[in-house]
Amino acid sequence: MTVSATARRTVRVDLGDRSYDILIGPGLIAAAGREIALRLKGRKIAVITDEHVAPLYLDGFMAALKAEGIDAVSLVLPAGEKTKSFEHLISVCDSVLAARIERNDAVVALGGGVIGDLTGFAAGIVRRGSRFIQVPTSLLAQVDSSVGGKTGINSPHGKNLIGVFHQPDLVLADTDVLDTLSPREFRAGYAEVAKYGLIDKPDFFAWLEGNWQAVFAGGEARIEAIATSCQAKADVVAADERENGQRALLNLGHTFGHALEAATRYDSARLVHGEGVSIGMVLAHQFSARMNLCSPDDGKRVEAHLRAVGLPTTMGEIPGSLPPAEVLMDAIAQDKKVKAGKLTFILTRGVGQSFVADDVPQSEVIAFLKEKLPT
Amino acid sequence: MTVSATARRTVRVDLGDRSYDILIGPGLIAAAGREIALRLKGRKIAVITDEHVAPLYLDGFMAALKAEGIDAVSLVLPAGEKTKSFEHLISVCDSVLAARIERNDAVVALGGGVIGDLTGFAAGIVRRGSRFIQVPTSLLAQVDSSVGGKTGINSPHGKNLIGVFHQPDLVLADTDVLDTLSPREFRAGYAEVAKYGLIDKPDFFAWLEGNWQAVFAGGEARIEAIATSCQAKADVVAADERENGQRALLNLGHTFGHALEAATRYDSARLVHGEGVSIGMVLAHQFSARMNLCSPDDGKRVEAHLRAVGLPTTMGEIPGSLPPAEVLMDAIAQDKKVKAGKLTFILTRGVGQSFVADDVPQSEVIAFLKEKLPT
Ligand SMILES: NC(=O)c1ccc[n+]([C@@H]2O[C@H](COP(=O)([O-])OP(=O)(O)OC[C@H]3O[C@@H](n4cnc5c(N)ncnc54)[C@H](O)[C@@H]3O)[C@@H](O)[C@H]2O)c1
Ligand SMILES: NC(=O)c1ccc[n+]([C@@H]2O[C@H](COP(=O)([O-])OP(=O)(O)OC[C@H]3O[C@@H](n4cnc5c(N)ncnc54)[C@H](O)[C@@H]3O)[C@@H](O)[C@H]2O)c1
Ligand SMILES: [Zn+2]
Ligand SMILES: [Zn+2]
Repeated sequence: MTVSATARRTVRVDLGDRSYDILIGPGLIAAAGREIALRLKGRKIAVITDEHVAPLYLDGFMAALKAEGIDAVSLVLPAGEKTKSFEHLISVCDSVLAARIERNDAVVALGGGVIGDLTGFAAGIVRRGSRFIQVPTSLLAQVDSSVGGKTGINSPHGKNLIGVFHQPDLVLADTDVLDTLSPREFRAGYAEVAKYGLIDKPDFFAWLEGNWQAVFAGGEARIEAIATSCQAKADVVAADERENGQRALLNLGHTFGHALEAATRYDSARLVHGEGVSIGMVLAHQFSARMNLCSPDDGKRVEAHLRAVGLPTTMGEIPGSLPPAEVLMDAIAQDKKVKAGKLTFILTRGVGQSFVADDVPQSEVIAFLKEKLPT
Repeated sequence: MTVSATARRTVRVDLGDRSYDILIGPGLIAAAGREIALRLKGRKIAVITDEHVAPLYLDGFMAALKAEGIDAVSLVLPAGEKTKSFEHLISVCDSVLAARIERNDAVVALGGGVIGDLTGFAAGIVRRGSRFIQVPTSLLAQVDSSVGGKTGINSPHGKNLIGVFHQPDLVLADTDVLDTLSPREFRAGYAEVAKYGLIDKPDFFAWLEGNWQAVFAGGEARIEAIATSCQAKADVVAADERENGQRALLNLGHTFGHALEAATRYDSARLVHGEGVSIGMVLAHQFSARMNLCSPDDGKRVEAHLRAVGLPTTMGEIPGSLPPAEVLMDAIAQDKKVKAGKLTFILTRGVGQSFVADDVPQSEVIAFLKEKLPT
């Protein structure tokens, strides 16, 4: 299926004088120079990418910049979650400063969520905030991490515990580049797409149940799913930029998911973020059913769809052994969604009816995890 | 001279829902537990300090917290500008996370500007922003660095190039603790006090010329000078939090000063920040006179006062050799007050009449530095 250039969609993230556009569609890497030159006063750019993305898209991206008279340098980092570390943060800051990127110039993240989170953090702290452009190349980054300004790195104490809010000035989501993403990574990103349906868009979830194969295949359905996801995230972010309230809903499935990522030591051979979210969303529905908030059928429906696309839905599918429930609970308690010792969870009253529950009893969670952990 | 508790002064920094108080006066370390407990919802605190301040004030401060039922841990770092590094930032973040400081708890900087800048930066990035209390113990920190929310560390590319804006929730400036500050450090802080007069308070500068000995001695004059300085900084910060305009005036003397600090590799045996500012302010007045903006007499008056209090006022007083003018120029150009290649300087039309000049010719600066550098 070929898609015409008119298929391009624009989602606006409304944040007053820090508002920005997300452009979604085919051919945006090749068009990047023009889109950036239109919006940027400076003419210098530092591009940060990873070793998987660089051989595929870096030359094309640099050429697109050069064609518009933009002077760019690039830094290629190792791929994978372990790159979200102080060590690599230091090298990104250093290369941005060495390139003498000034206030009107920009730092660009060309890659998945790892490169986006790390680079955005660096952009947020170099000169106490530099311009930042996201060119997300994974599905997860296109529908989630590149939008909304959360940036950061991991700590031995937990995921994303160090970072800043730093909004991008522009997001360019080229939907063609997803064709080179591994099927596993595409599925992982799809978990976040499904998440938007599960949060508060039951019709979108139903549409996905019927059209997911077309989304995976590419073309109009893919663009539609990505644009709907970006719009959903943009709406939440515009309403609650700093996560004081409703933005927490975006964490559906993430409290369990992050604990599983910590338990597997961010080893992507065992678990990638979206897979943790997939299992976490199923657990959130099952836990909600256990708390008599929704029907067990909701959990079964969610599990059936995620399994149909090929995502893991149970902890037992994670290769290698997992720690006991108490240790997982500890990882949950160190996660950032904790206020004064009480557990905050996103629970649900059914598909598309999630809500923030902020005093979930720890004992219930431990008992539930004990049931669900593989023996 | 003894001062009654009624001598305590409060300056409010007006920043909407992020407004905060600066308490200035004697005995505030002993009163810290009460002042903090009054304002903080949480009951956990991580105190960051340095090896000079710890033996003098850490026990007293911890006891004051404990008396109010606040649970505190502490981390003691090496003293000195070199502590403003990624290495120590990592250890502060780590100890704050290890202490499980949550959203309603706080991170405290007990020390001079180095500890304040480093700790504020860590507080700004742990969980994308944690509560932060400044307990400045040097004169410089009390009148300048603890107020306004600029935080950060140094990079091999220059000073304060990495950081965030992160406002404190409270500042406690105990004026008694300045008695243990070395005379050299007291003088260095005094350079920033004089700066407020030179920016736009000619009457305050004249008052300082007449009363500086009383300020150095302690008591009411010291409290008055500190409160006037904090109020001056608070006004500028409230008007221009992110330094888009007039806040830049606070950099009077700092463009030259930072270049000298870089040239001496932040070696405090050779030059401390306030000394660089002192020399930088004299240079700024002399350069302004050279550009026919003010009279050479203004430069002489400023130099006479700073010399009277014992501050260095010429580059020749810096021990060791300095790089040539071109290298200093390069350090200036890499400083953060550069927009699209043009040099931004704070210049002056006379004592108390400084202004932001944003296209100072580089050639003039180099020629001027060549004249002023010791041969
Ligand atoms: N900031 C936020 O709001 C937010 C939201 C969700 C997730 N995240 C973060 O995002 C990260 C996960 O993002 P991710 O899944 O994109 O991980 P990732 O960046 O590691 O990308 C996954 C893999 O795909 C490769 N890749 C990326 N684009 C490709 C392409 N077009 N073709 C071929 N290979 C490609 C990468 O090199 C990597 O190996 C996690 O660190 C997570 O914490 C952040
Ligand atoms: N954030 C800002 O807006 C801002 C503004 C101005 C300066 N600064 C920064 O502040 C730093 C300089 O601050 P500083 O001069 O306080 O340096 P500092 O923190 O190094 O303190 C100077 C010395 O005095 C010691 N000391 C501090 N309080 C003491 C006390 N009461 N008794 C005995 N010894 C004491 C310290 O241990 C240190 O050895 C620089 O890094 C500068 O960049 C920041
Ligand atoms: Zn996610
Ligand atoms: Zn200063």
